[in-house]
Amino acid sequence: MKSKLFALFVLMTGFVQASMHPGLFLTPKGVKEIRTSLGKYPAFDKSYADLKKIADEALASTIVLPQPLDGGGGYTHEKHKKNYYEMNAAGIIYQVSGDKRYAQFVSKMLMAYADLYPTLGLHPAVKSSTPGKLFWQALNEAVWLVHTSMAYDCVYDFIPEIYRKHIESNLFYPMAEFIANGNPENYKVFNKMHNHGTWATAAVGMIGYVMGDKNLTDMALYGSKKDRNTGFIRQLDFLFSPDGYFTEGPYYQRYAIWPFMTFAQVIENKQPELKIFAYRDSILLKAVDMLLQSSYNGEIFYLNDALTKTFKTQEIVYAVNIAFKNNPSNNALFDIVNRQGDFVISDAGIATAKAFYKEKNKPFYSYKSLLMRDGKEGTEGGIAIIRSGNSPDASCLTFKATSHGLSHGHYDKLSITLHDNGAPILSDYGAARFLNIEPKYGGHYTRENYSWAMQTIAHNTVTLNEQSHFNAKIDVSSQFHPEILYADFGSDQVQLVSAIEKNAYPGSRLHRTISMLRHAAFEFPVLIDIFRVKTDAQTADLPFYYQGHLVSAGFDYIKNTTQLKPLGTQQGYQHLWLEARGKTNQPFVQFSWVKGNRFYTLTTLTNDSTELMLTRVGANDPDFNLRNETAVMLRQYRPARHTFVSVIEPHGLYDISKEVTVGYKSNLKSLRKVVDNDTMTVVELSTQVGKKLLYAVVNNPSATATQRQFVYNGINYSLKGNYLLQLITQK
Amino acid sequence: MKSKLFALFVLMTGFVQASMHPGLFLTPKGVKEIRTSLGKYPAFDKSYADLKKIADEALASTIVLPQPLDGGGGYTHEKHKKNYYEMNAAGIIYQVSGDKRYAQFVSKMLMAYADLYPTLGLHPAVKSSTPGKLFWQALNEAVWLVHTSMAYDCVYDFIPEIYRKHIESNLFYPMAEFIANGNPENYKVFNKMHNHGTWATAAVGMIGYVMGDKNLTDMALYGSKKDRNTGFIRQLDFLFSPDGYFTEGPYYQRYAIWPFMTFAQVIENKQPELKIFAYRDSILLKAVDMLLQSSYNGEIFYLNDALTKTFKTQEIVYAVNIAFKNNPSNNALFDIVNRQGDFVISDAGIATAKAFYKEKNKPFYSYKSLLMRDGKEGTEGGIAIIRSGNSPDASCLTFKATSHGLSHGHYDKLSITLHDNGAPILSDYGAARFLNIEPKYGGHYTRENYSWAMQTIAHNTVTLNEQSHFNAKIDVSSQFHPEILYADFGSDQVQLVSAIEKNAYPGSRLHRTISMLRHAAFEFPVLIDIFRVKTDAQTADLPFYYQGHLVSAGFDYIKNTTQLKPLGTQQGYQHLWLEARGKTNQPFVQFSWVKGNRFYTLTTLTNDSTELMLTRVGANDPDFNLRNETAVMLRQYRPARHTFVSVIEPHGLYDISKEVTVGYKSNLKSLRKVVDNDTMTVVELSTQVGKKLLYAVVNNPSATATQRQFVYNGINYSLKGNYLLQLITQK
Repeated sequence: MKSKLFALFVLMTGFVQASMHPGLFLTPKGVKEIRTSLGKYPAFDKSYADLKKIADEALASTIVLPQPLDGGGGYTHEKHKKNYYEMNAAGIIYQVSGDKRYAQFVSKMLMAYADLYPTLGLHPAVKSSTPGKLFWQALNEAVWLVHTSMAYDCVYDFIPEIYRKHIESNLFYPMAEFIANGNPENYKVFNKMHNHGTWATAAVGMIGYVMGDKNLTDMALYGSKKDRNTGFIRQLDFLFSPDGYFTEGPYYQRYAIWPFMTFAQVIENKQPELKIFAYRDSILLKAVDMLLQSSYNGEIFYLNDALTKTFKTQEIVYAVNIAFKNNPSNNALFDIVNRQGDFVISDAGIATAKAFYKEKNKPFYSYKSLLMRDGKEGTEGGIAIIRSGNSPDASCLTFKATSHGLSHGHYDKLSITLHDNGAPILSDYGAARFLNIEPKYGGHYTRENYSWAMQTIAHNTVTLNEQSHFNAKIDVSSQFHPEILYADFGSDQVQLVSAIEKNAYPGSRLHRTISMLRHAAFEFPVLIDIFRVKTDAQTADLPFYYQGHLVSAGFDYIKNTTQLKPLGTQQGYQHLWLEARGKTNQPFVQFSWVKGNRFYTLTTLTNDSTELMLTRVGANDPDFNLRNETAVMLRQYRPARHTFVSVIEPHGLYDISKEVTVGYKSNLKSLRKVVDNDTMTVVELSTQVGKKLLYAVVNNPSATATQRQFVYNGINYSLKGNYLLQLITQK
Repeated sequence: MKSKLFALFVLMTGFVQASMHPGLFLTPKGVKEIRTSLGKYPAFDKSYADLKKIADEALASTIVLPQPLDGGGGYTHEKHKKNYYEMNAAGIIYQVSGDKRYAQFVSKMLMAYADLYPTLGLHPAVKSSTPGKLFWQALNEAVWLVHTSMAYDCVYDFIPEIYRKHIESNLFYPMAEFIANGNPENYKVFNKMHNHGTWATAAVGMIGYVMGDKNLTDMALYGSKKDRNTGFIRQLDFLFSPDGYFTEGPYYQRYAIWPFMTFAQVIENKQPELKIFAYRDSILLKAVDMLLQSSYNGEIFYLNDALTKTFKTQEIVYAVNIAFKNNPSNNALFDIVNRQGDFVISDAGIATAKAFYKEKNKPFYSYKSLLMRDGKEGTEGGIAIIRSGNSPDASCLTFKATSHGLSHGHYDKLSITLHDNGAPILSDYGAARFLNIEPKYGGHYTRENYSWAMQTIAHNTVTLNEQSHFNAKIDVSSQFHPEILYADFGSDQVQLVSAIEKNAYPGSRLHRTISMLRHAAFEFPVLIDIFRVKTDAQTADLPFYYQGHLVSAGFDYIKNTTQLKPLGTQQGYQHLWLEARGKTNQPFVQFSWVKGNRFYTLTTLTNDSTELMLTRVGANDPDFNLRNETAVMLRQYRPARHTFVSVIEPHGLYDISKEVTVGYKSNLKSLRKVVDNDTMTVVELSTQVGKKLLYAVVNNPSATATQRQFVYNGINYSLKGNYLLQLITQK
């Protein structure tokens, strides 16, 4: 009995690992679960119905494989994309329904591709250094193959062997060979530590598993030379920091998580002995958590090249389903599942749906203040996320002090964004791109992505001498990263992070300490931004790209009402229309705007050498590629040792529906710098209702206790940790 | 028995009508209903809890009556507003809960107002020609009194008579007197056919009913002289057209509906014999329907001076509750109630809530294509609304051919807007105003409201010689209105409206026929815009203010990339930055943009004398009061007899989440004018897939049958009604 069971077990596992079909992403167990579950879980039923609709529409139309011609968004591009979605859908529906018409469809389309593929040269729209054959870039070819592998797996047993041979030898082997080794560039990508490499290895590995070809799967796992110096497993070591941060930033973390998680699930099914989800202290599950943390109100942060992406994107649905399947104790994921209302029709999807509907108590996903360290050792800076709470309208600050982030990185060391009340308040431009809209530069990153979006001045950080960090040279920028001095989120009242960048400008030093304070003196949490600059540059510019409409500028300005000119000529400045400039003889200015039903005020210290500018993006944009966003910009002339001290404060209520306005004025009456030296910076905040707050932050964490003392109004204060927040009692 | 019942009836009705308290808006019957209903209807409970929260917070804080000082949005303004909301809330909660602390609060605050009011002169912030005492304009004083009357009614019996005397003689009588007759301007407003007059008469009438003063109520109903030439009833004759259209437009219809419906409910309670809701063929109920029809996706149209207002505003909650109470058969209102999720705590509110929760089948509110005639006789033009269907994402066109619309009217005869897919596509700027934000010109209409928002060039209609209609003179514009030739919404395939404006430019003639076509040749309904101009002007400008991002311009243009200048110097042109201008040697151009997940293309006929401009709002705006919206503008030089023929076509899908793009190209391959004379205009539309459509519209409805014939490709066609839509079979 024992041996019989064991034999069965061996047979079963061996079967799954090696040659069972389907056994790649969907398995017979999953198929059975789905069959018995349909009709029970409304959201899963809807996902199934959506997929079936794709398959049914595919069956009802003629199979068309156009000669490759267009770039992203163009007809032939979208058609070949649609084809793999259709095959994928039909393959799954075949498995679940048993209806052979779906399998026939996949079989026919595969045969047609097997006829077409050998006739193709490189794609004619050569805008990529790694062109594909069906698509303008090899990346899309890999994505095609990832999806089609799953479809092929679903109909494998249905297709007569002689047809399979035709398909494999004319389509899948040539395509896998092309992706892994089609030309020196493709070979490089396949063996590169980059998300394109992940798609490439996943594609080759997945078709390898379906075809039972150990050569392909080993190449995918361990690199072309199978020496483990490249390949999927090595990518897990290199592309994520120990915290699970993906070096290109959240937008590409979202994109990369798709092949990472999908291929990992395949490996788990086919080679469970690799324990891929436990690998490197469960790095993939950490990566999913970090991706979810890198969001506000269900939208992924704009950092580096980024466009709008929500939790509803299919890749995050994949990631969440697979993450749950491989760690069913993580029921906080149900909060995300609830937002998504969508499942992948797969073993992972049905497992998630079943558990989701069973669970009565759905805890909120816990968004935390955290530091995501960058670099494979976690030593190359990082991104800090500071939140005032867990609700969708809580304040959320991001502070970017990472390494460059490969080709999608921006030159924006120490830049910040702020979200509040459900919306972006201080924003990052993201990428200049109209993905998949062919008339917009073929759907690629537009020229303005480099000339504007990547440049320092496009971000909420300091630019010196109108030159971007590292002079916007990626090979230089990639060698350095900021140093995070400390990050302290332990207190409910004060959360702060401090980092130094010494390499962006040789000989200059940028040091920013940004804090979120919660205090009864203010209605909402406020930001204290202390940006210390040490430089011999002529100008230091610090813009705040505010979302919303200007309410009051708080300084005398001259507006360019009858003529607009660009602020500069290069490194992003050529794209800024200078709408107004002004000065003040006050020690600080207050700039207010309204966004949604709340007001915001920036209060910032000024002196004789401070100029204030109001800018709008859009100059030197011949093709209307830019969004016309606005900023208030501080320019400090001959800064030498200058410290920008700013408070960003949400306040009041603007209810246009009830026509009620409350508190449009800042609660801050004055802002003053009390101490500012290499050990500490101390500021004094006086509120309209007569309260005084002292706030001190440490500039040199290794300073001794005695050095961390200061005198204010004749009284001695000392900092114990990295900060001091003190309400001053009026005498 | 009979006589006893009758006596009781007389007693009851007499009591209600004359001196029962509360008996104004809330009655003992309503109070009882509310008491027994609490806990049963979640949305009603929430409304009650919201109101109770206002009352409780009021009770917990000190009563403050600041010396009037600020304009709208300022502290003293908002405080006096808050005070009436608090009294109103506390009064109602007192009635429902019986808790005397609420009544005490109202009593105390009224006593304080009675002390303050006699000491007040005119409000110091004199930006209005009709200043108030508590507020910068008498209008707000009337709104204060409308709310406070209800509060006083609720606590009337609680307040000792001697206190009541103090309150009435020092506060209510002087205030009523001030509103009705405080100075010549107030007298004028009280007797004016204008929404300010409605608030004034409602305020005086309502406090009159509470105090049982027939002199005041008669003045309110029949005018200061009680001769029925002015007053509330006369307003019902004058301010609405027979269709229920309010002459100032939907935004002010929304605002006016509040005192209209509230005071009407009071009259119904106090003088039911007037049958106010049946008056003039139920004009008030019609007005509520027209207000609801004047919306897209729950937002009121921007026409004339307008800001964003949704169905959730309290005034529309009042209107819908009262409309239902007085016509309980209209259960389509439940669709609106469902969107609102809010009720007025009153007889009307509880009646609506009870019925709403009882009804299982909640039909959709039926949004229809319709013509709302303007003018008290319905003879002064009107607004046409054409819809492709009843769903929230259906296409919806507005066509404005009304009279001027009093002081809030814009100079935009024959202008259009288009909504589609849930959002504005071709938009109306609305008003240049930041309501209740004091730093923005005191919350008033800004200077740019006249210099920009009202001017013709700010609208999707034709401007001749860079001069607004009627040279932007209200006294001239108010004398005229366009003539609606026909409006035909009978067919599912073709809906159209045609109007002529002969007076906007003496000697010139503007004639626009706008159609919504649904045809299998197009994915979505398309607009055909035929705008005929007969003039000796040098230029005819037709802008389309598009919402979204430019995809392709379809003509060679020179973009002003390093310098922007205003397009003109006056009548709105000074506010337009000229971003690009171009010409074409093609017979038509196609201009595409993307909004949400859909593409839109304007295809328009061009010739040698057509120039195309791309503009952005924002020049000559010293105080940052304008929104920077974009337009594509057709300029026809020396138009003489020119016909602008344009097709506006929604198409394709832009799904950024799934990264799928379909159909970014227009389905229209070419556009051609076949016939264009005083009898008809015929255009030919050729689609990408080779279909040809002929579309003909009548320009002269009184033409004879034989005149309505034309020849196309040797074949005779004739129009029977106002149009012909014909699919041409290919030979």
